[in-house]
Amino acid sequence: MTHCKPYVIGVDMGGTNTVVGVVDTRGKIVATTAFKTRDCEEFSDFVESIAKACRRVMGEIGGPQMIAGIGVGAPNANYYSGNIENPANLPWKGILPLAEMLYNTLDIPVAVTNDANAAAIGEMTYGAARGMRDFIMITLGTGVGSGIVVNGELVYGNDGFAGELGHVKVRRGGRQCGCGQRGCLEAYCSATGVARTALEFLDTHTEDSLLRKLTPSQITSKDVYDAAIQGDAMAKEIFEYTGKIMGEAFADFVCFSAPEAIVLFGGLAQAGDLLIVPIRKSMEENLIQNWKGKIKLIPSALPSSEAAILGAAALGWKAQ
Amino acid sequence: MTHCKPYVIGVDMGGTNTVVGVVDTRGKIVATTAFKTRDCEEFSDFVESIAKACRRVMGEIGGPQMIAGIGVGAPNANYYSGNIENPANLPWKGILPLAEMLYNTLDIPVAVTNDANAAAIGEMTYGAARGMRDFIMITLGTGVGSGIVVNGELVYGNDGFAGELGHVKVRRGGRQCGCGQRGCLEAYCSATGVARTALEFLDTHTEDSLLRKLTPSQITSKDVYDAAIQGDAMAKEIFEYTGKIMGEAFADFVCFSAPEAIVLFGGLAQAGDLLIVPIRKSMEENLIQNWKGKIKLIPSALPSSEAAILGAAALGWKAQ
Repeated sequence: MTHCKPYVIGVDMGGTNTVVGVVDTRGKIVATTAFKTRDCEEFSDFVESIAKACRRVMGEIGGPQMIAGIGVGAPNANYYSGNIENPANLPWKGILPLAEMLYNTLDIPVAVTNDANAAAIGEMTYGAARGMRDFIMITLGTGVGSGIVVNGELVYGNDGFAGELGHVKVRRGGRQCGCGQRGCLEAYCSATGVARTALEFLDTHTEDSLLRKLTPSQITSKDVYDAAIQGDAMAKEIFEYTGKIMGEAFADFVCFSAPEAIVLFGGLAQAGDLLIVPIRKSMEENLIQNWKGKIKLIPSALPSSEAAILGAAALGWKAQ
Repeated sequence: MTHCKPYVIGVDMGGTNTVVGVVDTRGKIVATTAFKTRDCEEFSDFVESIAKACRRVMGEIGGPQMIAGIGVGAPNANYYSGNIENPANLPWKGILPLAEMLYNTLDIPVAVTNDANAAAIGEMTYGAARGMRDFIMITLGTGVGSGIVVNGELVYGNDGFAGELGHVKVRRGGRQCGCGQRGCLEAYCSATGVARTALEFLDTHTEDSLLRKLTPSQITSKDVYDAAIQGDAMAKEIFEYTGKIMGEAFADFVCFSAPEAIVLFGGLAQAGDLLIVPIRKSMEENLIQNWKGKIKLIPSALPSSEAAILGAAALGWKAQ
């Protein structure tokens, strides 16, 4: 670690876009650039594209000698190995040695982790979890991800893949999940899960709803949100159902690590009270006595466009 | 910490007996004594009894100047505060400042933690989890306790009470648990839970069983074990039912901390393969792909009479 270098680079690698940004010690993004992840045919082309983007942003702040490290948040990335391992939603398969290849290209220390862990590090360094030593970050997007912080450190586990709370079972034998199991939290409480709930409710409920005007197969969690803020009863009930399941799961998570807070991040978290209120009610009902009223449930304090970059960048300070 | 002092004292405080032992650096118990916990009317009497017991065992190894610290494993004990907080199964109520009072009496550093955490520390220091940085200890006794180790450190959480895995819900709306909630792991998979399952099975099954010869209200998990090793089909089914629920819960725990192993400790764990085989089968069925076949499920390697003392003693090295 060379703390005298005043900047880090954060790389937010998504299935669609990859964003590269330079961040200073106070968490200000001072330069960014982006490219289409899928435009890179081979994984080596992708690494070359990141390197090119890094060189571009480094040019704006005085060159590579100003950079302490590079942090990358990427799907299925393993902090221990520096590899992306068997990603389901990327064009390349198998074991992809991202940290090693990027280091060999740029000669700057590189650390990688998965996107939810990067978000947790960002929240701890610059956001709502500043100063907290024990919290759980839940990312609600297409899937449900998590980053767990215990004693001020990310929990990576024995293999680097700890914190897969989206695959805790919330309904035994319930909905089929993309992971191959049934009844996972992700199958109910992701954006996709909310859309599935909408389809179920449209089928099993008889009441009228704004959602009935839409093509069922195309309904998104955003449609449910839009209907709910217009006062649509069924849409609100969908959020209550989602929040109930999430609150039950959160009460179990508290038994594990007794966190100071659970921080919600991602598109669905922007539903605000529509989701937070039923989560809190359900979590409180399910908590054992000594934790009732004591666990904070808070939204991310980072702008969604910046959180992933800031999280990856914060990891950059630890790269060596 | 004064590592030049060659011994620590471990105190295993139970609802019935309190055992005090001197342990050397290699985990050998060199002197012990015990007294009845409930013979002490006031909590201050109890502290005085521990002090007296400590003086007695210290006399056998050369006096207090040989002792680096005292570790106490006690129900509802909080590592952060040094207090026993609102114990359900002890004769004294409220907040009991054990570490402070014992330190004031003996002038030797004292650390306390709950019994399951002490067992985890013992297993990590002297037992089956030696060298492991990530594992989960599950104690199966009257209740279900847990001690979670992440990055080589006990997980205490924000308030010191992390690791209450016995109160994770395994059957929503299921059996009433002593904690006030329904469906907790403890209500199914403790020794008491096994006895409850036996009563349920006797009621709902029609087949003959050795268990039908016993007074139903007096059946214990030991009776179920005895029947099972004699080949009794219902008794074996009771262990399979218990193991199935435990394996489902363990698969969820793996999502949290991706441990190298889950270590089973306590009376019920001595059921061996009768319990371990169905747990493993169920856990494997419920694990997501990247963990299948990779999580060790092992019994404690410490003699049950020694584990609690050794665990508490290992904590003594950290007292300061």
